[in-house]
Amino acid sequence: MTQTITVTIAALQARMEAILAGAGLSGVQAAAVARVIVAGERDHCKSHGVYRAEGILRTVKAGKVDPAAMPVLTGDVDTAVVHVDARHGFSNAAFDLGLPELVARARRFGIAALVVNDCTHFAALWPEVEAVAAHGLAALAMCPSYASVAPVGGTSPLLGTNPFAFGWPRPGTTPYVFDFATSVAARGEIELHRRAGKPLPEGWAIDAAGAPTTDPVAALAGAMLPFGGHKGSAIGTMIELLGGVMIGDMTSPEALAHLGTTALLPHHGELVIALDPAHFAAGRPGDVFARAEGLFDAIAGQGARLPSQRRFAARALSQAEGITLTAAEVAILDRLADQGLDAVE
Amino acid sequence: MTQTITVTIAALQARMEAILAGAGLSGVQAAAVARVIVAGERDHCKSHGVYRAEGILRTVKAGKVDPAAMPVLTGDVDTAVVHVDARHGFSNAAFDLGLPELVARARRFGIAALVVNDCTHFAALWPEVEAVAAHGLAALAMCPSYASVAPVGGTSPLLGTNPFAFGWPRPGTTPYVFDFATSVAARGEIELHRRAGKPLPEGWAIDAAGAPTTDPVAALAGAMLPFGGHKGSAIGTMIELLGGVMIGDMTSPEALAHLGTTALLPHHGELVIALDPAHFAAGRPGDVFARAEGLFDAIAGQGARLPSQRRFAARALSQAEGITLTAAEVAILDRLADQGLDAVE
Repeated sequence: MTQTITVTIAALQARMEAILAGAGLSGVQAAAVARVIVAGERDHCKSHGVYRAEGILRTVKAGKVDPAAMPVLTGDVDTAVVHVDARHGFSNAAFDLGLPELVARARRFGIAALVVNDCTHFAALWPEVEAVAAHGLAALAMCPSYASVAPVGGTSPLLGTNPFAFGWPRPGTTPYVFDFATSVAARGEIELHRRAGKPLPEGWAIDAAGAPTTDPVAALAGAMLPFGGHKGSAIGTMIELLGGVMIGDMTSPEALAHLGTTALLPHHGELVIALDPAHFAAGRPGDVFARAEGLFDAIAGQGARLPSQRRFAARALSQAEGITLTAAEVAILDRLADQGLDAVE
Repeated sequence: MTQTITVTIAALQARMEAILAGAGLSGVQAAAVARVIVAGERDHCKSHGVYRAEGILRTVKAGKVDPAAMPVLTGDVDTAVVHVDARHGFSNAAFDLGLPELVARARRFGIAALVVNDCTHFAALWPEVEAVAAHGLAALAMCPSYASVAPVGGTSPLLGTNPFAFGWPRPGTTPYVFDFATSVAARGEIELHRRAGKPLPEGWAIDAAGAPTTDPVAALAGAMLPFGGHKGSAIGTMIELLGGVMIGDMTSPEALAHLGTTALLPHHGELVIALDPAHFAAGRPGDVFARAEGLFDAIAGQGARLPSQRRFAARALSQAEGITLTAAEVAILDRLADQGLDAVE
């Protein structure tokens, strides 16, 4: 029987890259996707870890992503908007290509945006806002997903779970980072309740007739609800507009219509905005990063937690002691390595 | 006894400008502040209407704002960040000065930001995102306020009610606009419950010991809570960082410490980000504004309301039939016109 194993971060990266290469991903695509999966495992963020590799291979096998796409930078270098055409590859390689240019433009203009178009979107936004923050810049990131959330007052899926992420650089330590779905809960959480036969908390979902429900089966046939009532609904709509319509890419209902299933990774675009605190604060009193630390100290000083702290604690542990994979995860890796695309439907 | 009266928008603007001029506001300051008060009355948004004039005069009388300040544009014209030094005048005149430059930079660079520093902040952000949207640009706006909201898991006021506003231009009609406090409720709503002797809904506030309370008196001595749990708390913190720390201006706790009271208008800065949809969407399939209308139709088509629709309906009514002021509002106007700064403490 397969056992739990502990591996180094580098070893898991190499293993995952080999699996993805075996499924047809080019070097640049495999490395970028693998880094995000490994970051998920490293941070004990299992929802973006090894088990997601199956969905990637399913999407490749279905012919819905170009696994060897070479993303290209487009657009005018004298503007503050960096465009990357992912050429129907994964979002990750496109983001990696655009990042240095986004950083350069934000430093030059004070604020800049990165648009990724025509990508298959994989994984969380926190690795991206963290990557921007590593350059001393603040970052906002957002994108649509699949229509699965009803606007407040509505009756059926229209908005996506539309993630919204923010990063603020903290010299010498991990950044201030949040990254959350603008639905009350992630779709996976409703699925977990269904498997466990447990009712949902009130306010998570409506059924197919638009009535509130705590039945996870009815919820999966109906729609999820936005977090925070009409305010979250408005933010989710803003993300459809900025991260879908404005960048000339698919909205969540269009992404669902395009593939006709939520079982494959969605195809749409992404928007990242970078802001240079050194530029904004120039000539003003106080040190901008020291002042932010004062705010964080005041939050922590009253017993509140900064977001992502559990993730950063897990990261420190993984860096010191390696990543422990469950027997089920080891089995997934072995199966995908042995069988490649034959391992998935 | 004073009666209800109905006045034209232009007449109320002239009356309010005269009152503010009588209190020492220069022409540029009086016109800008009056426009926002009149917009509040016009849109039946009484919380930003005539009754707020007393707070403006109190702040002038206390010497906490320069009523004749001339805001100035500063910074480098080759960047995407427009800086306006409000010179300790009201935010409104500073925003008005910066707006044309923000629009020009957003068109030139695709994305641009407007920073207002050292202002006394008056009124809502929706007039500002609407003003940007009137130029065919999307806008995000945010600013701190007074420390009155505890971060989730915390026990005492630290964050402000930190408004977050967004506007999307809709050719030929009113824009898509939201503008909300990142607290569950506005402080004024808690005050209204106190006056009515009614308990607060659960989840609005904590008492001075940090325990949940539905007693408005205990809530006013304690802290409000963010909307949407840890997600709203994170957004409120982001606004302290971007709209306070990053722009080198006061955070909500600093704004409270600076004046030592919430009875006067707060002194801090403001951040507005403008994005040019025509720039972002250039070369992509579909018409960017028509695609947005498709999204709005889908929202409205399932019975959900777009934000601000009540406000726009009130505006249409006011434009057609004038603004009706209550007897109490007429009395305020008469008293402020007769007595000027002597009318307030």
